Amino acid sequence: MSASAESAGQSPSHTRQQERSASAEVIAASAGESASAGVVAASAGESASAGVVAASAGESASAGVVAASAGESASAGVVAASAGESASAVTTGPIIGSRKVYLDTPSGLRVPRRRVLLTDGAHLDVYDTSGPYTHDEPDIDLHRGLPALRAGWSAERDADAASTNAVQTQLGLARAGVITKEMEFIAVREGVSADLVRDEVARGRAVIPANRCHPESEPMIIGKQFLVKINANIGNSAVSSSIADEVDKMVWATRWGADTVMDLSTGRRIHETREWILRNSPVPIGTVPIYQALEKVGGDPTKLSWEAYRDTVIEQAEQGVDYMTVHAGVLLRYVPLTARRVTGIVSRGGSIMAAWCLAHHQESFLYTHFDELCEIFQRYDITFSLGDGLRPGSIADANDEAQFAELRTLGELTHRARAFDVQVMIEGPGHVPMHKIAENVRLEEELCGEAPFYTLGPLATDIAPAYDHITSAIGAAMIAQAGTAMLCYVTPKEHLGLPNRDDVKTGVITYKIAAHSADLAKGHPHAQERDDALSKARFEFRWVDQFNLSLDPDTARSFHDETLPAEPAKTAHFCSMCGPKFCSMKITQDVRRYAEEHGMTSPDAIEAGMRAKSDEFAQRGGQVYLPVVGP
Amino acid sequence: MSASAESAGQSPSHTRQQERSASAEVIAASAGESASAGVVAASAGESASAGVVAASAGESASAGVVAASAGESASAGVVAASAGESASAVTTGPIIGSRKVYLDTPSGLRVPRRRVLLTDGAHLDVYDTSGPYTHDEPDIDLHRGLPALRAGWSAERDADAASTNAVQTQLGLARAGVITKEMEFIAVREGVSADLVRDEVARGRAVIPANRCHPESEPMIIGKQFLVKINANIGNSAVSSSIADEVDKMVWATRWGADTVMDLSTGRRIHETREWILRNSPVPIGTVPIYQALEKVGGDPTKLSWEAYRDTVIEQAEQGVDYMTVHAGVLLRYVPLTARRVTGIVSRGGSIMAAWCLAHHQESFLYTHFDELCEIFQRYDITFSLGDGLRPGSIADANDEAQFAELRTLGELTHRARAFDVQVMIEGPGHVPMHKIAENVRLEEELCGEAPFYTLGPLATDIAPAYDHITSAIGAAMIAQAGTAMLCYVTPKEHLGLPNRDDVKTGVITYKIAAHSADLAKGHPHAQERDDALSKARFEFRWVDQFNLSLDPDTARSFHDETLPAEPAKTAHFCSMCGPKFCSMKITQDVRRYAEEHGMTSPDAIEAGMRAKSDEFAQRGGQVYLPVVGP
Repeated sequence: MSASAESAGQSPSHTRQQERSASAEVIAASAGESASAGVVAASAGESASAGVVAASAGESASAGVVAASAGESASAGVVAASAGESASAVTTGPIIGSRKVYLDTPSGLRVPRRRVLLTDGAHLDVYDTSGPYTHDEPDIDLHRGLPALRAGWSAERDADAASTNAVQTQLGLARAGVITKEMEFIAVREGVSADLVRDEVARGRAVIPANRCHPESEPMIIGKQFLVKINANIGNSAVSSSIADEVDKMVWATRWGADTVMDLSTGRRIHETREWILRNSPVPIGTVPIYQALEKVGGDPTKLSWEAYRDTVIEQAEQGVDYMTVHAGVLLRYVPLTARRVTGIVSRGGSIMAAWCLAHHQESFLYTHFDELCEIFQRYDITFSLGDGLRPGSIADANDEAQFAELRTLGELTHRARAFDVQVMIEGPGHVPMHKIAENVRLEEELCGEAPFYTLGPLATDIAPAYDHITSAIGAAMIAQAGTAMLCYVTPKEHLGLPNRDDVKTGVITYKIAAHSADLAKGHPHAQERDDALSKARFEFRWVDQFNLSLDPDTARSFHDETLPAEPAKTAHFCSMCGPKFCSMKITQDVRRYAEEHGMTSPDAIEAGMRAKSDEFAQRGGQVYLPVVGP
Repeated sequence: MSASAESAGQSPSHTRQQERSASAEVIAASAGESASAGVVAASAGESASAGVVAASAGESASAGVVAASAGESASAGVVAASAGESASAVTTGPIIGSRKVYLDTPSGLRVPRRRVLLTDGAHLDVYDTSGPYTHDEPDIDLHRGLPALRAGWSAERDADAASTNAVQTQLGLARAGVITKEMEFIAVREGVSADLVRDEVARGRAVIPANRCHPESEPMIIGKQFLVKINANIGNSAVSSSIADEVDKMVWATRWGADTVMDLSTGRRIHETREWILRNSPVPIGTVPIYQALEKVGGDPTKLSWEAYRDTVIEQAEQGVDYMTVHAGVLLRYVPLTARRVTGIVSRGGSIMAAWCLAHHQESFLYTHFDELCEIFQRYDITFSLGDGLRPGSIADANDEAQFAELRTLGELTHRARAFDVQVMIEGPGHVPMHKIAENVRLEEELCGEAPFYTLGPLATDIAPAYDHITSAIGAAMIAQAGTAMLCYVTPKEHLGLPNRDDVKTGVITYKIAAHSADLAKGHPHAQERDDALSKARFEFRWVDQFNLSLDPDTARSFHDETLPAEPAKTAHFCSMCGPKFCSMKITQDVRRYAEEHGMTSPDAIEAGMRAKSDEFAQRGGQVYLPVVGP
């Protein structure tokens, strides 16, 4: 079954051709610009999938209406568009208390930052993943797609590659000593030197997932020397969700800080869903191509073939997928190692490949055709995310022979991919008790040449379904402290169902906590600035600043207002937790001010100062509290 | 101002005398039984507070109505009672899928367990903190109070103390080689030997908070050799909540697993609130007496005195408070060390004592009168929780000189208290980045003779108000892994307002996750049984068992049912996350079964087995999926 036939069968509105969207033009432009386009068109099955791109892009256009105000943030607007059969909306406008600013790079690239404006006149700039959606007056049209930020960068890349005789991937160019525009952008974004970015990419310890067919994305880097990144999984399944919901989740996830998004759709209209997501995504998009390949063969893993898989990869490559999970380490001989496990194989891709291996009694075609896959990835500069198909799905199965056998094979594949100048990261568990976490990072770095580790949690216990964002945040923070470069979020729905919009936000915020905690623990040079700014605001009773500096200003404010909604409570020197008389921060302010003024840093100064302070305190009537505001 | 006058002034309904409650009788009985009662009555101010006990117990009785069914659990009932001015209810009946069972100790004590009944006929027993409220048909009357479980144990304790010439505290008796009934109960509860319990108490590495005036409590132990415990803070403030709300929160917190509860009330009717909580609590209750002492002197910390504080401690001791936070380590000379901090002093008690020290230019009366305090604690067998008044309130202030200077003094006080055979635990931070957590435990153990560490989180970052249950669960799990014996929960309202009922549950479940994760990491002999049982249920698609084995069956079930509510989905071999075709667990079951049957554990067996499996798989039509159930 061809991809286009499948798509047509699932889309009743397929013939409804409206104005051709900008996203289709972008695809055409990028395909034309790429030296590999000719090769792609020549490969089997490609013409069918290329047709789908145009068709689905044309089909998907409907209405783009900007509503005045909605969402939980006062400043947020909503852009509505009907994607296929169901109408939806995405949230736009700045996060409350913030505005988008840009930093210029040496060559004039504009790097986005979110500026949190404080009531004392100061501000704090933070890393921003939200793309154009958070402009003050965003110009968003979902069927047009985002501006193709990187479309004009290809000429320089071509010239650099030609002059250095390098393979035209970020890894190839880095190895040739070239600082690409992506690297220049990232250096400013991370606040580090461009040389560090290039060096880390060249040695394979960091990756820049940036398919040249996804020019809408803002360059970002994944590596242990940089800020810890987080990924949000979205995607429909056979029983739930729609395209519009998934586009909304993508925008929503990046609003709150998702650095990449994986589209794990397995239901209807996989190609079309992905097209909408890619054309509107400011962050790199990852996929697991085996899911769509399985749909193409009617859901029967035994009918999978290298050819069907390869064509799916090329189809997705053309759309602009930036990194792809490939479970090429699930070898035939490893499958029996899972036999005595409590939870067997819990990776979808891993179980599909295990079933294929069993049915055919052959080595995985992902493994035997790996070099051909590298050639495709090289053309588009797609990054491998070598999947841990045998990751543990329970505490009992953590760090077992199946898991580590696969990891050794992933190490072998890492070096094979790098020989093609293709970037690699390695996926990791899963479910791991705390005392077995560090071993995962140590082994991964040793076996896989320090390729960036990209872990799912891990969950530190199995016993809390409905709270697995928390069980996994514990493991995630610890494994990131140990060196994991990107954390795949887990939502409260893990093990139970498909996450909705609220779950996506909860997952993202929870993982921002884990990632930031690790940045602090690793001593990232700027990480603590935000903690200090927020804590200073807290100590000075600048409630609004405390809200706005937080990861989720809307929820922080609403929790405060549940018990003290009146406006004076926003300046009161207490909250409902302790009330006015027991506010420790207020009481201690007197102490602090005095000691600072008198330079009380030595024991002698303390003795003298304390006596003076005692007198002063008594003279002022022993007042340490403000008058009570409110009841 | 006397305690009774204050209480009368705040309770308009004070003269409304109804039937005298059983709780007042319990107090009378326990006061009579205690050798120290005469001494207590003789101390200044005590008669006033003793009057309050009877008055408030008499006043608080109203109606006890058992409703048929309510709450989120199908099996849960609600017991209603109006405590003072506002009506409320507590949730009763078993947690869904479970029933209360009892294990007998050698001398016939009955130790509660919660038995999770599985659909495959098996069961798993778990530690139970919920008291009589979770009986199948609970006989609960809030104004009568819980049965006085330990009331009859005093005769043996008296005899043991007399025969061994020991001080009649758990520590005194343990040092004399006596295994008390409390220790016997705990040994069965923890699944360890009674000798281990006695040994750990004797060396001060574990404590059994059990005021002899709180006979309703079920004995429990806090120490690093045992299961990690969690505490839930409740209590009203000047601006929010009522007595009835707080009793409800206490029952609710213990239902979900709180091992102890601290009543941190600072608002009106502190004494009466505590009385209701104590008489109805199956777990030890902790307080911070300085809060009530401050209320007694009109909220002005400069007016505090040793006498006012002492009388408050005795009043609370008579009521049955099991452990008390005493900020005796906040010395005058340490206060200036907080001057340059980002958030100064964030402990309520610490800031109150710092203000007193400044105003009087004297050393803290808690420090100078510490031996007298030990004498009082010894009489009732109250456990010290030596408060960390100078704990860091921000990442910037973690592990600073103020914090560790106080910790050194707490070490000194630990040894002074132990000289009185009084049990001690040490409170810890607060806000600490991950890389500074282990140092806290190491220093505490070194300086404080391995006294159990009892920490508040710590929060691993400051930047997520509204999610501080999560930021702190990360730190809590890690510090417990490092040796902390009890974790004080943090709710989503931390830094923002007073937690409501939902926040209390979220805080408790989150901290059960942290504690259990640490139990796993520490290799507690039985901890992993629950993980394994749940994961096995998950792998076998026993959805109901997966829900019921989880920390929060109600929420797990409702999350599942959000997308697949129909009854067949409870047996379906998939959920809405992946749908039927992509369920890895289903796919892998074939693999597992086959390998187990063929004993495929060696490479040779694998080679042979895989080939046979391939043929078998093909003969069966390559079917790896169940027929689809539902849409």
